[in-house]
Amino acid sequence: MGVVLSLEEGKKKPASVKPLVDLTKADMERVNQLILSKAGSDVQMIPEVANHLISSGGKRLRPMLTLAAASMFGYEGDGHVKLATSVEFMHTATLLHDDVVDESDLRRGKSTARTIWGNQASVLVGDFLLGQAFRMMVDVGSLEALDVLSTAASVIAEGEVLQLSVAKNMETTEDDYLSVIRAKTAALFAAAAEVGPIIAGTDKAGRNALKSYGMNLGLAFQLVDDALDYGGTAANLGKNVGDDFREGKITLPVILSYRRGTAEERSFWRNAIENGESTEENLEHALGLIKKYDALNDTLSRAVHYGTIARDALAPLPASPHKAALLEVIDFSIQRVN
Amino acid sequence: MGVVLSLEEGKKKPASVKPLVDLTKADMERVNQLILSKAGSDVQMIPEVANHLISSGGKRLRPMLTLAAASMFGYEGDGHVKLATSVEFMHTATLLHDDVVDESDLRRGKSTARTIWGNQASVLVGDFLLGQAFRMMVDVGSLEALDVLSTAASVIAEGEVLQLSVAKNMETTEDDYLSVIRAKTAALFAAAAEVGPIIAGTDKAGRNALKSYGMNLGLAFQLVDDALDYGGTAANLGKNVGDDFREGKITLPVILSYRRGTAEERSFWRNAIENGESTEENLEHALGLIKKYDALNDTLSRAVHYGTIARDALAPLPASPHKAALLEVIDFSIQRVN
Repeated sequence: MGVVLSLEEGKKKPASVKPLVDLTKADMERVNQLILSKAGSDVQMIPEVANHLISSGGKRLRPMLTLAAASMFGYEGDGHVKLATSVEFMHTATLLHDDVVDESDLRRGKSTARTIWGNQASVLVGDFLLGQAFRMMVDVGSLEALDVLSTAASVIAEGEVLQLSVAKNMETTEDDYLSVIRAKTAALFAAAAEVGPIIAGTDKAGRNALKSYGMNLGLAFQLVDDALDYGGTAANLGKNVGDDFREGKITLPVILSYRRGTAEERSFWRNAIENGESTEENLEHALGLIKKYDALNDTLSRAVHYGTIARDALAPLPASPHKAALLEVIDFSIQRVN
Repeated sequence: MGVVLSLEEGKKKPASVKPLVDLTKADMERVNQLILSKAGSDVQMIPEVANHLISSGGKRLRPMLTLAAASMFGYEGDGHVKLATSVEFMHTATLLHDDVVDESDLRRGKSTARTIWGNQASVLVGDFLLGQAFRMMVDVGSLEALDVLSTAASVIAEGEVLQLSVAKNMETTEDDYLSVIRAKTAALFAAAAEVGPIIAGTDKAGRNALKSYGMNLGLAFQLVDDALDYGGTAANLGKNVGDDFREGKITLPVILSYRRGTAEERSFWRNAIENGESTEENLEHALGLIKKYDALNDTLSRAVHYGTIARDALAPLPASPHKAALLEVIDFSIQRVN
């Protein structure tokens, strides 16, 4: 995609999610079993819709965070498997509702549930998965974990409504945008990581470290996602380049290009985003402006900034394979663009 | 509406919800305060959408059940106010999502949120209210109450999906229909009533009594609602007569008329419901068939049946103003048709 991360050294071997995958492999098999079992229902449409999304090849990064964060502090029960599954269900429910709200046809390279079963089923199966998520959390019995995850559920929905409020508004600032992605993406990363130390009975410092790690990793992750939307290929994106543009979504590459542009260029953006003139020709022009103002590189620099905060959040914790794997995930999330 | 309940004596003064309203008045003021506070958000659209529905004049029967059921067993804390508010938020979230799923334009005589703010806001504000409901439950700290209410959330969504599966299918049996209304309506009534004795620390017998009362009251309530849709007026319905018919919804009056009808009449129903030929002329014809087969009276007889079970569920409990008020609500729910 032609993006060069100036802060990156480029000589080390690329960061990978593999150490995290390997460390959580046994537990993730139990998570996957539990996902299938808790997405089951006598109402046939429920497992159909749920499994369509569940089996569509997401990385399951969030439940891996929960598992690793719990094991890192010596947790040995099975509550972390249930909490990890709850986190994945919350995420899946959000995706189902998001696709309805965004009127998306493609997710991870596959048709969205709403194009196959309709908006109605997507809304209701999302509600069902959210209900099942809460039942599993209750089953674990930690009121602190319940507090963190139920708060995240509210905050995520609040972030989605905020995104709706600022949609197609070119005056959206970088701060507004950060408020949106902090709520709609980073809050669940933070909660997923924080419930690990909570269930392990760790002290407040350990909880806060993992919460801060998750929050900043989530911000970096979403920033990179939003850069990829203007710089990846359909194959590595699992969606089409320019989807955000077509939906009139205000993300950082657009915000930077708009604010740095000439009066004429700003008028172009307003016409494209606010008036919905998102033709392929306009997308080409938009990509040119994003390049002209180096908006992808600067979006990625912001991601690196939050990645560094995530790294420092874990710094006081003792060295361990889990810590190393979580640190590598930061670099992996940012290097996805290459 | 011309329906005569043969089981009713008709000479006693009509049953009223007033004793329940009076008994829970002070607590309901606190519920209403909490509703306003917990539907608040810096994201302006959230309180706008939430308050539109919250202030639209629902009876708030469900939270009153929770309050009365807790006080009945001597509960004196403030957890019942939070649980009652959670129950109302769960209900409001369901209504917001329902209106999207059903594509409804009118609710309680007012435009639905989705016609004013769009489907997107209705889905997301529903999610927000559900998140807030769980946060309040967690705040109360009773894992048993959390278990009951989170299970209800799953069951409600499952019931809605089931309703979607049987939609426009004239072969739906009375049993299928009962499964739907048990899940989508009665489960929340049951949970609302059961968490009262739970938070009061009552024994299993007391919990089960209130749960059974709520479940059967909910069934009676929904049966009457479905009868009213073919027999009320827009004024007492808060929606238009025949809305269910226009949406192709399979409710008991339709099931009975269809199953009791001639081959020609069954063909009419299939055309009207399955093929969506729900013209005003066809609605008139449908109303004629419902009358011909006494389907409204028999729907109400079923409601009376469940009302009787609800009454017997409370029978072993000692006499109290709360018990009397809850019993009167059964009759009130059924007599709404007159």
